Amino acid sequence: MRNLTILDCTLRDGGLTNNFRFPEKYIKDHIQKISEAKVDYLELGYKADPAYYERTAYGKLKFCDDSEIRDIIKGIPGLPKLAFMVDVGRFDRRLVENASVSPFTMGRVACYLNQIEEAVEDVRFLQNKGYETTLNIMAISRERIPEIICGLRKIKAQIPAAAVYVVDSYGALYPDDVKKLVSLYKEELNGMKVGIHVHNNMQLAFSNTITAVESGADFLDASVNGMGRGAGNCPLECLLPYVGKDNYDLKPVLALINDYYTHDANERSWGYCPKQLLTGIFNQHPVYSIQGAGEDLIRIYDHFQSEVQV
Amino acid sequence: MRNLTILDCTLRDGGLTNNFRFPEKYIKDHIQKISEAKVDYLELGYKADPAYYERTAYGKLKFCDDSEIRDIIKGIPGLPKLAFMVDVGRFDRRLVENASVSPFTMGRVACYLNQIEEAVEDVRFLQNKGYETTLNIMAISRERIPEIICGLRKIKAQIPAAAVYVVDSYGALYPDDVKKLVSLYKEELNGMKVGIHVHNNMQLAFSNTITAVESGADFLDASVNGMGRGAGNCPLECLLPYVGKDNYDLKPVLALINDYYTHDANERSWGYCPKQLLTGIFNQHPVYSIQGAGEDLIRIYDHFQSEVQV
Repeated sequence: MRNLTILDCTLRDGGLTNNFRFPEKYIKDHIQKISEAKVDYLELGYKADPAYYERTAYGKLKFCDDSEIRDIIKGIPGLPKLAFMVDVGRFDRRLVENASVSPFTMGRVACYLNQIEEAVEDVRFLQNKGYETTLNIMAISRERIPEIICGLRKIKAQIPAAAVYVVDSYGALYPDDVKKLVSLYKEELNGMKVGIHVHNNMQLAFSNTITAVESGADFLDASVNGMGRGAGNCPLECLLPYVGKDNYDLKPVLALINDYYTHDANERSWGYCPKQLLTGIFNQHPVYSIQGAGEDLIRIYDHFQSEVQV
Repeated sequence: MRNLTILDCTLRDGGLTNNFRFPEKYIKDHIQKISEAKVDYLELGYKADPAYYERTAYGKLKFCDDSEIRDIIKGIPGLPKLAFMVDVGRFDRRLVENASVSPFTMGRVACYLNQIEEAVEDVRFLQNKGYETTLNIMAISRERIPEIICGLRKIKAQIPAAAVYVVDSYGALYPDDVKKLVSLYKEELNGMKVGIHVHNNMQLAFSNTITAVESGADFLDASVNGMGRGAGNCPLECLLPYVGKDNYDLKPVLALINDYYTHDANERSWGYCPKQLLTGIFNQHPVYSIQGAGEDLIRIYDHFQSEVQV
C-alpha cells in the first residue's frame, strides 16, 4: 500500500464527549501508547479561546497551552508529531507561540464551507508561525457540489501547501459519496493532500476511510475504540491492520482498550467489540474468542499471531 | 436501485447466541414487525435433527417443527416468506414435510466448501419437496480461489435454480475481497442469484453488503440491531434505508429495537447506536439526538421525517 498518514484524534474528538475531562493518567498513557503504535500524528485537543470558554468547565486539552502540554509529554519517548485544532475565529492568536518553540508541529483549522475565507486566513496565520496545517471542512454531507467546488477553488488560490479534509461530521455519507468527494477534492486541489475524517453513525466509518484511501486520500483520522462525538470515529484498531502491519503496531492500541475501554463491551455476548475484531483480522472462527479466551486482547492477539507464524 | 431481496436472519443467527431461547413474546413481536417492515424473507431458525441436539436444551426455533411454527405465526397478517436453515447432513429428512403443506417457503442449506457435494444433494432434496432453496457456503474467507471455483462448478452443473451465498462467517473480508468473490460467483454461476451474509467483526458488515450489491448480489441477509453470532450481522436498520424507502418500512424495525435492544446502548453516551444511526440517515447533527431527544427512536424518526417533508 502507498504511503499514508494516520492521525489519532481520540483526545480531541473524544474530548467533545466529556468536556476534555480525561484523567491525567489516561492522557499520559494514551500519548505513550499512540507513540508506541508509531501513529504519525496525535491531535491533543483544541486551542480554544478562554474568552469564549470558562477554563474551569473544561479539562486542559480544551486549551492546549504549550506549557501544560510540555508537562504532560515530559519523558515520553518517540512522540508522534503533535497537533492542535482551532475552530475558525474561536482562538486567540496572541496565545499561539511560534512552532519553533512549541511542542506542536501541526495546527488544524475547522470550519464550515461558508467560513472558508476566514479559515484560509487562520491557516495562513498558522503557516506563518511555522506550523504544518490542515483545513477541515466540516459537515460536508450537507453541502452541494457547486458550493463545494467554489470553496475548494478559494483554497487552492490561496494556500497551496495545506492538506484539506473531507469531514463527515454527521456520519451521513455512503461509500459512493466519499468516492465522489475525495475525487473532487483531488481534482480541484491538484497536487494538495486530501484527508478524511468520518463518523460512525451508519457503521460506515471504517469502510468510508477505506473508500477514501482507494480514491486518493492521504491523511486518515481515527480514534481508539472509535471514541468520538456521537457515534464516534473510524476505530484506529480497525484502520492500523488495514493500512499496514509493517509501519504501525496494533498492540499498544489494544493495551489502551484493555485498560480503559473494554468495560463497555463486556456486558454483551455479541455485537461489535475489539475482541471480535481480532478474530476478523486474523481470519479465525468467532467462537474462539467467545469461549475460554478471556478478555485479555493482548493474549488473544499473541495466540493468533503465533498461529500465523507457525 | 434494482430489485433486491432482503432476508431477516435475526432469529436464526441470533439464536446461536442464546440457544434459541427467545421469549415467546419476542418471537411473535419480531415476526409481526418484520412483516410490517415488508422484509421479503424471514428466517426463523434451523430444522436441526433431534437425534443430534437435545430438545430441552434449546428453544423451539432450533427445530422449527411445522406445527409449532403454525401456532406461533397464527393471526399475524402479511407474513414474509418464511425460511429455515439446515446444516448439511444434520437434519432428518423424514421430518421435512412437503412445502405445499408447510408454513415454510424456503430451505437454506449451510455447508463448508468441502461439503458441496453433500449440500447439493440436500438442496436437490428440498427442491423436490417444493421449497425455494439457497446454498450457503460458510467461512469463505478461509478458502482459496481455485477451490472456490471448483466448488461453484460442481453447483452449477447440478442445481442451476438455487441462489448461492457468499458467507463471511469470520467477518474477515475487506470490501475488495467481497467484490472479487461476488463477481466470481456471478461469473461462474452464470444466471444464478448470488447472496451475501456477513459478520461485523471489522465493522464492515453493512459496507460489505453495499459492496456486494454493487458487485451484483441479489439476496441480502441482515438482522435487527445486527444481532447474530460473534460480532453480529449487517444491521437491518442500516440496510433498509440504503436499499429503498419505497419498498420497506424502517419504523417497525426501530420499534423492535426500542422495545428489546436499546438497553445495550443506553449506558454509553457515544459509540454506534440506533439513535445515532438516525442522525446519519437523516443527515442531522449528532447533538440533536444526544440532547433532549430522549430514547424513543420512533419520536426521533418522526421528528426528522417531518423536517424532511417541510
